[in-house]
Amino acid sequence: MDFEALFQGQIDALKTEGNYRVFADLERRCGAFPKVVNHGETGPSEVTVWCSNDYLGMGQHPSVVDAMVETARTCGTGAGGTRNISGTAHHHVTLERELADLHGKDDALLFSSGYVSNWASLGTLGSRLPGAVILSDALNHASMIEGMRHSRAEKAIWRHNDPEDLDRKLSAIDPARPKIVAFESVYSMDGDIAPIAEICDVAEAHGAMTYLDEVHAVGMYGPRGGGIAERDGVMDRVTLIEGTLGKAFGCFGGYITGSTALCDFIRSFSSGFIFTTALPPAVASAATASIRHLKSSGMERAKQRRQVARLRARLDALGIPHMDNPSHIIPVMIGDPNKCRMIADILMAEWGIYVQPINYPTVPKGTERLRFTPGPLHTDADIDHLATALNALWSRCALSRQVA
Amino acid sequence: MDFEALFQGQIDALKTEGNYRVFADLERRCGAFPKVVNHGETGPSEVTVWCSNDYLGMGQHPSVVDAMVETARTCGTGAGGTRNISGTAHHHVTLERELADLHGKDDALLFSSGYVSNWASLGTLGSRLPGAVILSDALNHASMIEGMRHSRAEKAIWRHNDPEDLDRKLSAIDPARPKIVAFESVYSMDGDIAPIAEICDVAEAHGAMTYLDEVHAVGMYGPRGGGIAERDGVMDRVTLIEGTLGKAFGCFGGYITGSTALCDFIRSFSSGFIFTTALPPAVASAATASIRHLKSSGMERAKQRRQVARLRARLDALGIPHMDNPSHIIPVMIGDPNKCRMIADILMAEWGIYVQPINYPTVPKGTERLRFTPGPLHTDADIDHLATALNALWSRCALSRQVA
Ligand SMILES: Cc1ncc(COP(=O)(O)O)c(C=O)c1O
Ligand SMILES: Cc1ncc(COP(=O)(O)O)c(C=O)c1O
Repeated sequence: MDFEALFQGQIDALKTEGNYRVFADLERRCGAFPKVVNHGETGPSEVTVWCSNDYLGMGQHPSVVDAMVETARTCGTGAGGTRNISGTAHHHVTLERELADLHGKDDALLFSSGYVSNWASLGTLGSRLPGAVILSDALNHASMIEGMRHSRAEKAIWRHNDPEDLDRKLSAIDPARPKIVAFESVYSMDGDIAPIAEICDVAEAHGAMTYLDEVHAVGMYGPRGGGIAERDGVMDRVTLIEGTLGKAFGCFGGYITGSTALCDFIRSFSSGFIFTTALPPAVASAATASIRHLKSSGMERAKQRRQVARLRARLDALGIPHMDNPSHIIPVMIGDPNKCRMIADILMAEWGIYVQPINYPTVPKGTERLRFTPGPLHTDADIDHLATALNALWSRCALSRQVA
Repeated sequence: MDFEALFQGQIDALKTEGNYRVFADLERRCGAFPKVVNHGETGPSEVTVWCSNDYLGMGQHPSVVDAMVETARTCGTGAGGTRNISGTAHHHVTLERELADLHGKDDALLFSSGYVSNWASLGTLGSRLPGAVILSDALNHASMIEGMRHSRAEKAIWRHNDPEDLDRKLSAIDPARPKIVAFESVYSMDGDIAPIAEICDVAEAHGAMTYLDEVHAVGMYGPRGGGIAERDGVMDRVTLIEGTLGKAFGCFGGYITGSTALCDFIRSFSSGFIFTTALPPAVASAATASIRHLKSSGMERAKQRRQVARLRARLDALGIPHMDNPSHIIPVMIGDPNKCRMIADILMAEWGIYVQPINYPTVPKGTERLRFTPGPLHTDADIDHLATALNALWSRCALSRQVA
């Protein structure tokens, strides 16, 4: 059996398709973000990152950095065990309380990542609630899909962001079975936002519990950064709110929040929670500082909204087509993996602009795109420079424009 | 549908069985480990941790802490994206090179945790190699089991650490199918060690690839801390070596090492690698420092072996029964969840000794135990104190002794 040939064959196929990924090797420097050093083939050069999920730049916020540094100095670099076997640090407990408070819930539970929190929680709910059916929005994230798949529970897919279709799908299921409605608030690739209240109306009418992924919304929406459910005043209607510490909070890790019994249930039965080393206390401490800051400061959110609007206006003026949506994500559609990569390569090499081409499997084939995420630390000059570059490229590559 | 009652019912069942877990809320302090502050119900008190997986105390090593602090100060607290979308830091690349070198492989790939590395890698191998069969040691870790389950590949279980049984199982499979032999080196709950060379003999005879989890061995065995495969001189015979940064290296994260094509294959197709935020650069940097230190320093390993032998000798002298094994793990068998918890509670409350009772589902019901992991930072006085405490408890609770 020639395993090397098996591996290489599938890699070669990816290359032929234009879907092989090469990672940009970056070096962030505190205070300079979103400018970073790109360790490219021709040596290091400075570039501006336009596709970070550190949406608000909290990863370099002095109070967040200080918290990590201080906890590393006092407590060390690792937890040293699973949560159950010597790995629970006081910093985890504090962070879980902070997260429960953020979402107005009784309790919270930390995981290694947002991916693991979705996978483990949906996996546990789907497999341990006898006869459970999971009703999944058609565009749910890979981590939710893998969790549902893992649970082996029956799954019904409803049309993206369509409460009426959800209602039809729910009506077709035996009322005696436990039903879990799983969806996201901000969808990260299209930037559209779920009608949470309407979805809750439907779920409640059918006695279903709701599972909401706010990964791209926590820290960013709502008066305290509690997400779209906070903004819409419906946090108490959602049974479980899931989030990440790795995007707007600028750190690492994932979590769920909900009732005490719900969190205790996942805590007690979920393999992906139990059998793994706890997050470093220094990471938990940094995340706590970030959440606390964004609970009271609206400045970062306001500044981000301003820069998002500014870039949208510039693109509109230049006729560069982008997907309209009510969020902070600006997808510029290209529709071909090789062209998408080529444009990104030119932006990096000639303009010092880093935006990752988003190809399959992150988005469906044929919907390849550049996804811009302006933040409060992008200056007006950065936006001007990006608009100028895109304008030049659109002409040079004869890409189609859209007249407003 | 009363979801709260569903959750609470299953929690209550755990409580009735004696398998409900309460986490000790600990505060590590650099320089003092394995002494920590336990935030218990009656207020904080100092205890000595006897069940940490920070086996060598590297989580408080000055060069490891300094690396985390310095990288947090220069680069911030988070990576800000997935590896593909702006999240690859120069520190990840450096760490991957260090890991490949540690195991004598061409390449390495980082994951959020050891759990995720097993789950994602076995899941990807099992699902993307057409017709694959995974041959799994009967005592493999939950993360490997979940990965195999996830892959939906056919699975055959061979008797624990038994190359002859593996040979029988392999002989029964169509030679044309790709076969993956999955096992661990040090099994963490019994502390026994796999005969890696014999297992490789058998696997090679059948053209199977080998997948070895060295999570409890990396940093600890072999002249450079490369694990049991390094100690036994067989690293080059194992196709894939998996490990963690969260135990002997004192940090957080997981990885695999292998050929360039193998790592590229997992990198390109594994959902659990692709769709998740990269590790914080500061964590990667700390892990790199820890690996480098343990590559050249054998002092921590030597001191640990001394303290493990010392505790074993004390237990033997007192007739306190413990599982014999060739590793650093000393399991003292109790065989009942409530008794196990009671003894641990008394050790904590009356003796300032923290050892977590290991109950189901971490070990099978009926094999509940106390699992001691002496390290280089446990003093002779710590060992004396522990032996005295156990001796007193064995008399008080009329537990059976074993005459040597
Ligand atoms: C919707 C959604 N959920 C969950 C995740 C995973 O979160 P994390 O990066 O913390 O693993 C992501 C992206 O990474 C995501 O886009
Ligand atoms: C054998 C084995 N493999 C993998 C893991 C998971 O590693 P991590 O803690 O880094 O998730 C563990 C324990 O946690 C383990 O015992």
